[in-house]
Amino acid sequence: MRTISWREGKITLLDQTALPHTVQELEIVDYRDLINAIKRLAVRGAPALGVAGAYGVALILHNAAKENWSMERIDSAIAELREARPTAVNLAWGVDQMKSIVPQGFAKVLARAEEIASEDAIANRAMGKHGADFLMNKCGERKLRILTHCNTGALATTEWGTALGVVRELANRGYIEEVLADETRPLLQGARLTAWELSEAKIPYRLLPDGAAASALFAGLVDAVVIVADRITRNGDTANKIGSLGVAVAASQVKVPFLVVAPESTIDRSLETGAEIEIEFRSDAEVTHFGGVSTAPVGTRTYNPAFDVTPVRYISAIVTEKRVYEMGNGTTL
Amino acid sequence: MRTISWREGKITLLDQTALPHTVQELEIVDYRDLINAIKRLAVRGAPALGVAGAYGVALILHNAAKENWSMERIDSAIAELREARPTAVNLAWGVDQMKSIVPQGFAKVLARAEEIASEDAIANRAMGKHGADFLMNKCGERKLRILTHCNTGALATTEWGTALGVVRELANRGYIEEVLADETRPLLQGARLTAWELSEAKIPYRLLPDGAAASALFAGLVDAVVIVADRITRNGDTANKIGSLGVAVAASQVKVPFLVVAPESTIDRSLETGAEIEIEFRSDAEVTHFGGVSTAPVGTRTYNPAFDVTPVRYISAIVTEKRVYEMGNGTTL
Repeated sequence: MRTISWREGKITLLDQTALPHTVQELEIVDYRDLINAIKRLAVRGAPALGVAGAYGVALILHNAAKENWSMERIDSAIAELREARPTAVNLAWGVDQMKSIVPQGFAKVLARAEEIASEDAIANRAMGKHGADFLMNKCGERKLRILTHCNTGALATTEWGTALGVVRELANRGYIEEVLADETRPLLQGARLTAWELSEAKIPYRLLPDGAAASALFAGLVDAVVIVADRITRNGDTANKIGSLGVAVAASQVKVPFLVVAPESTIDRSLETGAEIEIEFRSDAEVTHFGGVSTAPVGTRTYNPAFDVTPVRYISAIVTEKRVYEMGNGTTL
Repeated sequence: MRTISWREGKITLLDQTALPHTVQELEIVDYRDLINAIKRLAVRGAPALGVAGAYGVALILHNAAKENWSMERIDSAIAELREARPTAVNLAWGVDQMKSIVPQGFAKVLARAEEIASEDAIANRAMGKHGADFLMNKCGERKLRILTHCNTGALATTEWGTALGVVRELANRGYIEEVLADETRPLLQGARLTAWELSEAKIPYRLLPDGAAASALFAGLVDAVVIVADRITRNGDTANKIGSLGVAVAASQVKVPFLVVAPESTIDRSLETGAEIEIEFRSDAEVTHFGGVSTAPVGTRTYNPAFDVTPVRYISAIVTEKRVYEMGNGTTL
């Protein structure tokens, strides 16, 4: 399954807002529709956004050639796309990868975008293998029960997945007993997206409220936890979807391995520790409403950070496409 | 505010399913309507259910006298009420309190039911004072930021509350800066009920996803955590609403006091440790649906325990109407 691809002058996107009940492809022929799709989270997930940015520049050039746009119009469209989600580093990264190639025209840009998409898929497979090898070595050759948080699968990447890529790899090897998927409030990426991917892949899973993760860990129902990262600092502190920290702390208490699975590009060596990571806060409505229905008193304010930072002391290992970094004793990246 | 009371031949109930947007009183004149109200959670919370059981027996006798019921019919109605929620120990307890008085007739039964309601209210005030004294002693005389989980307020009791009673007492003394209320998935008692009580009491609060509690604790936004208990074993292990354990573990890591506030009747001295507590599992639909809307793939199974057990090593103190038990170093109850 490819979440996003280029097909004859169009970007084809799996609409993530329609999941899990409707599998619907969007065919995008205008870059403004792509911006709209990005804003309403029809496509999301750091690697997927990087690829969307790259294909988006190709789409702009494709239409510019057909309609004879001025260089100025092309530049302004590219800038507009780059800003569609200002906090998503990967979108800007994907757009910026194209910058130096834009003068060479559409064909070269599309070729580079396809390359970025393939590189992401290849990196995911490598992470999956490294993570699976590590866990089978750590836990012994038996069917594993893996807990995960948020969506880190094919939907967040081009295909396969990061943390969920490790699960897919283990499943391919016949070593998955069950996946416990946190529903991941407030936006329920676990319930809507991870559960859907697991169900499609026929990997056994159960969904749980985020608050039940500690209970599952203490009850001995989990052999390992796998998550992705939005940013990792030099010392190994990891920013990820809100709720990751609580799972990491509980896992450490019962000595369950806690793995961060993310591409090398997630490691930000300009930051020493997690204290330097700026955390994005999101709207009250995400917490006070559900599917448009208000569940809290009118005027309720919230504490709604999009991410939390897990100190490296709760992290067993960081898995990238290059290698496994076992953390502890002051290891740095 | 009284959640439940007796008024001229009727039980008056605040309908908790209509909150937070509609404040609606139910006037119950038939015990079968009371059973229905209990089943659909219009009244919930251990102490509130105990009082509902007691008033329910009074209502049965009231109607039996008017309509000349046989003793057999009375007994069967009482038995039916007692079983309305089989896992709610307090409902059966409230009904059983009336058993020996039933032969003495309606007036005596009503008097005892009123007594139970008053005793609950008095015990709550005492817990509130003990808890507030303890925290002001522990944290110093300053405005406190308190995190809580689930609903432990007037709605769960007759009036005032247990853990939220400590918050109300601190607020009365002018020592609350802010309450952070976990929304408490899957049933959102925090969003629907605790937020409503705090808003009514004009106590400043913010609502947060359960997964954000560890983030708030690690960010230094919390001076103390207060929760209630469904059952406490002799060594201090505490069963409470799912999600409590994760908060306790995170609080212990950053040395934030974690208080359990519950009546003495919650202490089950027949059990040595939490390992002996049986945990109720609830339906998949609570997790896979939200307000009647399906949020996960059809057929998704869940891990949905109603409670988790917090080992006593993560609990700073247990506060009852009698005293504060500081836990640690093998203290038993």
